Order: sequence, then structure tokens, then C-alpha cells
Amino acid sequence: MSITAYHHLHDRLREAALLRSAAGVLGWDQETYLPPRGVAWRAEQLAVLSGRVHRMVTAPEIGEWLAAAETAAVPLPADAPPDAVVADTNLRGWRRAYDRATRLPVDLVEEWTRTTSLAQNVWAEARRTSDFALFQPHLEKLVGLARRKADAWGWQTCRYDALLDEYEPGARSAELAALFAELGPQISALVGPATEKAARFPRDLLAGRYPVAAQQAFNREVAQAIGFDFTAGRIDTTTHPFCTGLGPGDTRLTTRYDETDFTSSLYGVLHEAGHGLYDQGLNRAEWGQPAGDACSLGIHESQSRLWENHVGGSRAFWDHWLPRAAHHFPHLARRTPEEIAGAAARVQPSFIRVEADEVTYDLHIILRFEIERALIEGHLPVAEVPGVWNETFRSLLGLAVPDDARGCLQDVHWSFGLFGYFPTYTLGNLNAAQLMHHARRVLPGLEQSLAAGTYAPLLGWLRQSLHIHGQRFDGPGLMRHATGEPVTGRAFLNHLQSKFL
Amino acid sequence: MSITAYHHLHDRLREAALLRSAAGVLGWDQETYLPPRGVAWRAEQLAVLSGRVHRMVTAPEIGEWLAAAETAAVPLPADAPPDAVVADTNLRGWRRAYDRATRLPVDLVEEWTRTTSLAQNVWAEARRTSDFALFQPHLEKLVGLARRKADAWGWQTCRYDALLDEYEPGARSAELAALFAELGPQISALVGPATEKAARFPRDLLAGRYPVAAQQAFNREVAQAIGFDFTAGRIDTTTHPFCTGLGPGDTRLTTRYDETDFTSSLYGVLHEAGHGLYDQGLNRAEWGQPAGDACSLGIHESQSRLWENHVGGSRAFWDHWLPRAAHHFPHLARRTPEEIAGAAARVQPSFIRVEADEVTYDLHIILRFEIERALIEGHLPVAEVPGVWNETFRSLLGLAVPDDARGCLQDVHWSFGLFGYFPTYTLGNLNAAQLMHHARRVLPGLEQSLAAGTYAPLLGWLRQSLHIHGQRFDGPGLMRHATGEPVTGRAFLNHLQSKFL
Repeated sequence: MSITAYHHLHDRLREAALLRSAAGVLGWDQETYLPPRGVAWRAEQLAVLSGRVHRMVTAPEIGEWLAAAETAAVPLPADAPPDAVVADTNLRGWRRAYDRATRLPVDLVEEWTRTTSLAQNVWAEARRTSDFALFQPHLEKLVGLARRKADAWGWQTCRYDALLDEYEPGARSAELAALFAELGPQISALVGPATEKAARFPRDLLAGRYPVAAQQAFNREVAQAIGFDFTAGRIDTTTHPFCTGLGPGDTRLTTRYDETDFTSSLYGVLHEAGHGLYDQGLNRAEWGQPAGDACSLGIHESQSRLWENHVGGSRAFWDHWLPRAAHHFPHLARRTPEEIAGAAARVQPSFIRVEADEVTYDLHIILRFEIERALIEGHLPVAEVPGVWNETFRSLLGLAVPDDARGCLQDVHWSFGLFGYFPTYTLGNLNAAQLMHHARRVLPGLEQSLAAGTYAPLLGWLRQSLHIHGQRFDGPGLMRHATGEPVTGRAFLNHLQSKFL
Repeated sequence: MSITAYHHLHDRLREAALLRSAAGVLGWDQETYLPPRGVAWRAEQLAVLSGRVHRMVTAPEIGEWLAAAETAAVPLPADAPPDAVVADTNLRGWRRAYDRATRLPVDLVEEWTRTTSLAQNVWAEARRTSDFALFQPHLEKLVGLARRKADAWGWQTCRYDALLDEYEPGARSAELAALFAELGPQISALVGPATEKAARFPRDLLAGRYPVAAQQAFNREVAQAIGFDFTAGRIDTTTHPFCTGLGPGDTRLTTRYDETDFTSSLYGVLHEAGHGLYDQGLNRAEWGQPAGDACSLGIHESQSRLWENHVGGSRAFWDHWLPRAAHHFPHLARRTPEEIAGAAARVQPSFIRVEADEVTYDLHIILRFEIERALIEGHLPVAEVPGVWNETFRSLLGLAVPDDARGCLQDVHWSFGLFGYFPTYTLGNLNAAQLMHHARRVLPGLEQSLAAGTYAPLLGWLRQSLHIHGQRFDGPGLMRHATGEPVTGRAFLNHLQSKFL
């Protein structure tokens, strides 16, 4: 590897990461504190910044430095020192990003921007009026452009792979399709019994007033206990909760509060703090470079779901936390840990993905994956989406979709041109269960430490097995590295059975 | 004027304003919400952004476009249409900024950065230990570099003018010196009687608990009433209060809270909201360009002091606001408006400028102005600063300075190389009084409207007389335009007499 070319790349792309994270601060501010009349100027600030970053990362000299650095590169030996691993990871990641950024012709990028920007407005109106015909021509255009993007990026067996690769490098749609085809019916079979069982603990066991300030104090205690570092992060309030990494030492979560239900903000914070712990566990010295960046969406989501569902959703969690919850919300003192855990873990088939419970959630994803894959591969005309949606929904969830607003128009994703994104949610769930299963094997005292509210052993294992590697491995590779196995649905199904049956 | 060159300049410098204001958001965030461990990355983000902005605004094509635009420019007729006035203002402002940015040799800029960065640390230690000798060599170097900067920028009669011009374009130190020489003894003569009179209303008339949430609610009511637009701005909490304009429609104030004294945050908010009203009154379409930017520090400070001292500090203010204050702080119901106004307007000679009252404040400034002017003109060796400080302090304020920490080492400004900045504080006070005096003449019902809590007439007059002009005039020119007179100390002295005697 040419050391000089490597250092040029490192410096230039670090500067790009600094500017990109500056835009990140502006984006965070827009969601949290920006006054309404400042929105137009903010859009212009972000446009200038992203234009500058794009020019930096697609500049011809990047390509020249990459070629120079690669010419001299040799395969890494198994015992390569950490610096060499970092350099190898960075070089591969830079190449990938540069190719993806420069392979799209300018006219396609421009048409993409115009089309998605228009489609988002039309989609909002179409959902409001439940009028698929209004959105249909836009979705047709988006699918056509997404196919062109896939062809520009390049693919081998399936066109959809090129899109999936944007969010989950290394994943293959044929493998996912096989995995999901097996998983779907097995989850469907659980829904009935789990729904019945869950009814033992009705939601009104939790009825009461939960003042925002008390929720904030409790959430903060919990987030701190699982390891979120508040000297390097914070929690603010937004309508749509998220987690964003704005730099090494600056990881920000958001949540929203429902004063009739403290579990809404608590599990929201556990979810976002899961993302945040991943961000705080990245290699700080390489922050913003491939060696210090998250591996994939499916791995990121595994971290949020692990802390939300496997840790926070367990009976053991409430064995430890009920006294603290009752300190902040005194009326909870008359409840048992079993009641809290049970009432928080509702199961009820419903139409809207973002409101779905842990058992039915992935059925919503499998449906979307099948449809968008068929769209991109050219096996399904856009006009037939509502029909296929409703039919598949009935077979997976046993419910008749009443209208497209509660059916194929419910999600914003396709109007943004996001195809290949949905399956990473289910990968996150499968990864989380498999990681937790493996952690139980390699950390013998894990159950006892979780029941005692001691999370350092679990977090420590996640840090060394996943977080610190950045993009050294792709998603499937990282799961094999961490658990010794390829990703299957087995651990996830076992988890659902033991938690809900 | 060449239209093409003008538009090139406008586009490029608007982009620079967008990036500069993006850095402004990062700076605001650093003071308000940034987690402690994010500070190092933030410094790097800001360094990259400011480096990029500097390269943009000093690029050779800016000089070429300026020359082209100026060649074709003609003097503005008195009845020039608004667009022509804007273009003329921008062109003059761009020229000024370009010359100031490009006239400094690179080695001077670098030495300046190194020297101030070191001097700030040494100053903090010198103040802590009250050890002037420690700071002296750094101050000597700073004075030498400031003189070189002045020479690079150019000056006619006084070297200090070139530094003053950075903060108060159009001001001349000889004129300021004459004005201050007259003002100092007249203010000094007021201190004794005003101190005696102020003692009639001791501070403990306001004794009580003032919960932060109630202060926030009251301050917000007041800020909204004077015209601060919360759809285009906000108030947050910081140790050192400030106001910053982050874009059209985005003006942010900060304050701090003392739960034993509600007037501290209230007058802080009135002060910062005065700056904020100026920012919100600028020409939005030209925001960030000279035609949409503030005129000078002395004009900016006049707006903060006008709302803080002339509006908020008046008996009429409390005639209207005492009932609302008593709503938020019930124990105030037993006080009269006169008592609140009187107790809030304390007078007491003291050593520290930032804690000084309205009567003695400008004596602190006159002292600093005389010393720094003598330093820059080469009439005073740095070693003699403490002696001259203490002697002048005694003659102006009648107090013996106990140590340099409470004397010439108290302010951070000189360690940042800020020479020529201090006098703008007093100009702000003189301008505020003169503007208020003139407003009373041209707005006949002003007293009644202020007593009724109706501030729109005053704000409307400030908007059309000052805010909307941006940098069309320099500070002295804008004061003549708004009040028909050059700036004198007369209105200010009259104000002090009627308020404090």
C-alpha cells in the first residue's frame, strides 16, 4: 500500500467527515430546537454543505490516490497488527464509497432528486386520502430510476442486491428470501397463541399519570446503567425519536413522552440508547472513517433491539428496576415485575408497522421485502401492489386491510426511493436474538448480572465483538465473527417462544 | 456597476454567509448543549469550516469581480430606488471586508493566532494569581502585533483608528477622546448623589425565592411583548449570556438564572432581546450580506441598552408589569412599581466592569479606552499599565484598586487581541439615550404607550430608522440619519440625572 496516498485519503476524507458531521449537527438542531421560521435558511445551509462534501469525496484525486494505495496493497495476514487492519478496512471502505458515489451519471442523480422530492409530497396527499392511483405514477417512476441506479452500481445475480447493498453490504436477496420464506409461517403460527397469552396482562395494569420530568429522570437512570455515557451524549425530545452520532464524544438520542404511558418513552430510550452504545463503542481515533463507522443498518438495529427487547423487555429487567420505577411513579409499587414486563409486552395483530408488537413486527417487514424485491426485479407491476399487499397481509397476519392508507401507502420509505432498507429491520431482530443467544453461552454469569442490573459484561462483549470493528467485516461477516455462525431465524424464534408462550 | 460581477459576488458571498452561519449553529450548540467529551471534535469542525470560508472570501476572483463591479459604479442619487441602495451598500461592504481580509500578510495572521491562543491561557493564570508580570510580555507582544495590523490595514491620523474601525466603522479616536474627556468628570460628579439616592430602595425589597420555571415564563412574556418573535427565535440557558443570529428567522438568546434574584435573568433577557430585535429587524432578503447585516457594535449595543435600561429600567415599565410579575412571584404583590424599579436600579462604585451599575459603567470603559489608545499609539509602555490603571480608577471612581486581578487583569479582551472594542460599549449607551430622546420627540404618544405595555410604536420606529438599513451608513452616519444630530453625551447625562437623581 502506498503510505503517502493512504495519508492523503485519510486527511481529505477526515475533513469530509468533519463537514458531514457539521451538517449532522444542523440536522439534529432542525429536529430539536430550530425555530419554525428558520427552516428555509437551514435547508440552504445543508444544501451548500452537502454539495461541498459531495465534491470533496468525488474529486478525481481521490480516485488517483485510491488506485495508488491499492496497487501496493497486499492481502492481510491473519495476525496483522491493528494499524494494518484499520488501514485495510479504510481502504476497502473508501473504494466502495467512491465507486458508489461516482458510478451514478449526473442526469440520474438530478432526476432522482427531482422525482423523490415531488413523490414525497404526492405520497403524503395520497396517504391522507387513501388514493393509491395518485401515488402510482410516481412509484412507477421511482422503481424505474431505482433499477437504473442498481444497474449503474452493478450486480451479479439479482438487481435488488445492488440496492440492498447500500444499507446492508454483503447481504444477498436470494439468501434473505429463503430465510424470510421459512420465518414468515413460523412467526404467523405464533401470533394466535401469543395474543391469547398476552391478554393475561392487560395494559391497564400500568394505568396512571406519568409526569414528563419523572420519566426523564427514570429513563436517564436506566440509560446510564446500561452504559450510555452522558459526558459524551444527551437525550432531547422530538416527535420522531432517533439517535445520531455527531462526532467522537457526541452521541445524541431523542424520545417523546406520553404522560399516560411511561413504557413508551422508556422503551424508546432503550432502543435509541442501544444505537447510541454502538456509536459510543466505535473506534474514536477513526471516527467518520470506515474503520470507525458502523457496519450496516442490520447490525445497528441489532444493538437497539437487543437492549430494547432482550434486556429491557425481560422479566429480569423488572426484577431489578421495579423499585426505581416505583420511586419515580409511586402507584407502580403495587405491581409485580411479572405484571410490568407482561403489560409492556403486548401482542395484537394490527395494520400499522410502526405500532406493531415484537411478535408481528417482522411479518410487516417480510411483506414489504417481497413486494419491493418483485418490483425491482420486474416481476410485479406497480398497479398490482395494493392487491398483492392486501392478499399477503391476510395470509401472514389474518387481517383484511381496510384501505391503502392502512395498507401499502402507510410508510414514507418508497416515496424517498428507499428500496432495500426494510429488510434490515428484520435482520436487526434476527441478529439481536443470535447475539444474545451467543452471549449467554460465552458469558456464564450473564443471567445473574442482568437480574442484578449489571450490564457491563454484556456491553463489554458487544464492544469487543462488534463495535470496535467498524466496517472491518460486512454484516454477515461480522455476525459470523461474533457468533461463529451465519445468521438464521432460530435464536429469534426461540426468543419469541420463550418470551411470549 | 457591472451587473454580472455584482451577481457573482452576491452568490459567492451568500454561500460564505451560509457556511459562516452553519459555524454559528455549531458555536451556539457548543455553548448550550454539546456534551463535554464532544469539545475536541467540535473545535476541528469549526476550524475546517472557518478555513473554507476564509479561502472563499479571499479568493482572487473576489478581487477581480469587485474591481469590475466598481469600475462601472456611479454615485447614488438621493432618490435611488431600494435595489440600488442595497447594491451600493453591498458593494461598499464587500470591498471593505475583502481589503481587511487580504491586506494582512500571512505571517502576521499566523503569529496573531499563535500569540492570542497562548496569551489567553497565560492571562487566565495571571488573573487567578493577580500576577501582571506574568501577562506583561504577552501583552507587549499583542500590542506590537496589533500595531502591525493597524499599519497593514492603513490609517490617517491615528493608528488606533484602524483597530477601532473593525468594530465601529467611521468612528475616529480623536473625536471619541474629546467626547469621553468631557463625559468622564460629569459622570463622576453624579456617582456620589446617585449612590445616596439609590440607597432609598435596598435590594432586599426584592428578597424571595424565584423558581427558574417561573422566571422563564415571565421573561418570555416580556420578550414577546416588546416584539421578540419566538417563531423566529428562542431563549436557552448559558453561563455567559449572548445573542446570536443564525439566519433569517433564527435569532437565539441565552440567559442565566439566579433563584434569589429574578431581575438578573429579566434584565439579561431584555438586553439580549434588544440585540435580538435588531437581528430580527434586518433585511431578511439580504441576510449575511452588508445590506442585511448589523451596522456596528456601538449600534448593536444601543439596541440592547435601550430595551434593558430605558424601557425595562423605567418606572413606567413596572407600572405595567408588576401585576404580571406578582402573578409569577406572588410575594411581589406587596411591592409598588416604584420600589421594584428603584431596587433594580442599584448604584454602587465597584471594581469589576461586568458587575457595574448603569451610572458607573462608562467610567470603567473610559479608563480602558484611554489606556489601550495610549498603548497602541506608543505613548504608554505596557509595564506602566497597572500604575496608570489604578491612578485613573481612583480619579474616576474614587476607589483604590486592591490588586491587578480586580484591576487591569480583570477583562479577557486584551488577551484575545481585542483593542478598539471597549469604546463601543459606551457608544452603545450614548446612542441608546440619544435614540430614546429623539423617539420621544417624533412619537408623541410614546410615554403613554410604554406605560400601557405597548411597544410596537417604539420598535416600529427603530426598525425603519435603524434596523432595515443594514450597513448602508456607518455608525456615526446612522445616528445622524436617525436622530438628525451627531452623537454627544447630552441625552445620556440627562437620562442618568432624571433616572438616578
